[in-house]
Amino acid sequence: MVERLKPEDRAAGLSALAGWHACEGRDAISKSFRFRNFREAFAFMTEVALVAEKMNHHPEWSNVYRSVDITLSTHDVDGLSKLDLELAAKIDKIANRN
Amino acid sequence: MVERLKPEDRAAGLSALAGWHACEGRDAISKSFRFRNFREAFAFMTEVALVAEKMNHHPEWSNVYRSVDITLSTHDVDGLSKLDLELAAKIDKIANRN
Repeated sequence: MVERLKPEDRAAGLSALAGWHACEGRDAISKSFRFRNFREAFAFMTEVALVAEKMNHHPEWSNVYRSVDITLSTHDVDGLSKLDLELAAKIDKIANRN
Repeated sequence: MVERLKPEDRAAGLSALAGWHACEGRDAISKSFRFRNFREAFAFMTEVALVAEKMNHHPEWSNVYRSVDITLSTHDVDGLSKLDLELAAKIDKIANRN
């Protein structure tokens, strides 16, 4: 059973992630990614989608041409869980390969 | 060169599209799609991405689990063009196959 992160784990987890910031008004984190064009942005999204589906933990995200904005939160706990930190780290790994 | 739609063409085009509505505050149209799960939602997005890339005309869109919200507008004319009507029709065709 996934649990909402305790404040100390939340702070430690966030400090280990580059570029992710806490969302205002809700217990969630987000980051914006920018690519060279739509093709690269959607290739990134496709890789993230496969990882997310495998984790059964999905992002809230939007795309406008070469920009992708991602927000992570865990619906079941109405806030951040370790799943969000794990998915954020995997997303960064995918982005850094591009 | 693509042009902004004239009011009569805009009205006729929109009336031919089911479920697309004019956005408030900007010359754009949008529609929300809902699927059975993330896998189906992202499969839909992938098909739309390929069509959009081929047209070199891209949607603004967001996805949360099984929902996909799409907004169409033409950046070059700062409003609706026939490209948006064409893409909207193609998106509906893809959605109706799922």
